[in-house]
Amino acid sequence: MHTDLVAALDIGGTKIAAALVDGRGGILVRAQHATPAQEDGDTVMRAVTDVLGELTASPLWERVAALGIGSAGPVDASAGTVSPVNVPGWRGYPLVERVRAAIGGLPVELIGDGVAITAAEHWQGAARGHDNALCMVVSTGVGGGLVLGGRLHPGPTGNAGHIGHISVDLDGDPCPCGSRGCVERIASGPNIARRALENGWRPGPDGDASAAAVAAAARAGDPVAVASFERAARALAAGIAATATLVEIDIAVVGGGVGKAGEVLFAPLRKALTDYATLSFVQRLKVVPARMGTDAGLVGAAAAALTGPAKAAAAGV
Amino acid sequence: MHTDLVAALDIGGTKIAAALVDGRGGILVRAQHATPAQEDGDTVMRAVTDVLGELTASPLWERVAALGIGSAGPVDASAGTVSPVNVPGWRGYPLVERVRAAIGGLPVELIGDGVAITAAEHWQGAARGHDNALCMVVSTGVGGGLVLGGRLHPGPTGNAGHIGHISVDLDGDPCPCGSRGCVERIASGPNIARRALENGWRPGPDGDASAAAVAAAARAGDPVAVASFERAARALAAGIAATATLVEIDIAVVGGGVGKAGEVLFAPLRKALTDYATLSFVQRLKVVPARMGTDAGLVGAAAAALTGPAKAAAAGV
Repeated sequence: MHTDLVAALDIGGTKIAAALVDGRGGILVRAQHATPAQEDGDTVMRAVTDVLGELTASPLWERVAALGIGSAGPVDASAGTVSPVNVPGWRGYPLVERVRAAIGGLPVELIGDGVAITAAEHWQGAARGHDNALCMVVSTGVGGGLVLGGRLHPGPTGNAGHIGHISVDLDGDPCPCGSRGCVERIASGPNIARRALENGWRPGPDGDASAAAVAAAARAGDPVAVASFERAARALAAGIAATATLVEIDIAVVGGGVGKAGEVLFAPLRKALTDYATLSFVQRLKVVPARMGTDAGLVGAAAAALTGPAKAAAAGV
Repeated sequence: MHTDLVAALDIGGTKIAAALVDGRGGILVRAQHATPAQEDGDTVMRAVTDVLGELTASPLWERVAALGIGSAGPVDASAGTVSPVNVPGWRGYPLVERVRAAIGGLPVELIGDGVAITAAEHWQGAARGHDNALCMVVSTGVGGGLVLGGRLHPGPTGNAGHIGHISVDLDGDPCPCGSRGCVERIASGPNIARRALENGWRPGPDGDASAAAVAAAARAGDPVAVASFERAARALAAGIAATATLVEIDIAVVGGGVGKAGEVLFAPLRKALTDYATLSFVQRLKVVPARMGTDAGLVGAAAAALTGPAKAAAAGV
């Protein structure tokens, strides 16, 4: 039996996606469920096993050599556990052990979702060829990962690059993580929508009150919608500038659902970056949209499964 | 001639110190001048050459093999230039070339002052044995440096770890660097003193309005002085927590003049750290006083001269 494929699992606060992926990052089979984020841990796990069941039912499954997981963080790569901020039913949850049991004992690699999208963007996307990069996903939450000196920097527990939970407003609103004024508390999709609603923006006849609807309103010139994106952009800029000032990166890649808002986000983001990234060695910092789209988490998890995190780092994936 | 010593130069916003240092970090000869920080660039350079003149006049000078500079940042290690925020007369100033000329052509190594104190604390001080550490100097300015994966992380231009100029208050007061709400703008000695004065603290009969005098008042129970240190502690905690969340460090070492304030600073700092360092992988983070004292910059600059930054990193210095 030739095992030339890997399985990938991307676990976020909104959806649980899985795929069979080839050695070039091509996705052959997909499955996806909504995340029952507010349910108990077993219920969340059932959504995972349901998605995995769709993969193992594929005739291609017999070619799968390993499975990679990119999970909302924090994760503990050494213990194989996850504690996603937006999934309260999972705290120190033994995800690696449960997934391994569900797929008959194949090798399982766990990385944080921020590290996963970073592996994907550095391997095949917007950070390709950059030795010092921050890659971010801005959606339900805000995650990220780092490439330093040409290599992934997952950190000892696999959580480095966790930019969503650095405080850029030390007196700011409480964040579910326990801190205040976190980048995520200001710039995530739900917070962009909440702030627009609080300031008087109202959804259209379809009732869509998502950040995507706020982005559409901003493109149409609604000043409250524009202001909500500008505020998110300032928080993202402060976080990106802090990262560049701390570790010297030359590119920041922004993806995720909010990243798809386009110039409504990127125009104020580039402007705000000139306000916060002021020291000489960070002034050349560029911010660009992600290229991998919503598949970044799956492709990065596949990269982890193909090579293992340590090998992936060594190979510059 | 046996060349077993190095010269070290530590350039800050308040003082310019120099020393002859042996291979174990022992300081044999010292010289020091106040920094004429608000004067033109040539005047600042004259203070440097005066200090160097005291070293070259020593009978030990003939044993000196190289000179290391730790300078207030930003620096550009590749270009050999410095642009210290608090020394406006030096912008892209060719310090390496000028120092080399002043000492007759010996090899000169330049690193940022934050990287220098980090090299010293990791070599001989409080970060010894820690593979992932942030070392900070809190005085006229706030600087820092990083050890990641057991090695110094100077970054491509030698400025990584520049924690003083990350924003922890995105709507905060303007900082001389051009940004807002920087850690330094809240937590440096001059800002601790300014805030205490603005809120009604008054110096004693000796007229001393320094942060050290505010620290003495705080130890005596003055509530305004206590509050000014608590505010500085919160900004430092937010910055340290951001660093840990971004790159995974397990220890933060705080030195410099303000770091010497003792429990007046460290008690609220440890408390505030529990407010901002909330995610599971940063909760074990410790914050400790520096061990190297005011010699850290000289010893770290000596480490750079002894081995060169790349060799120092490889040797775990």
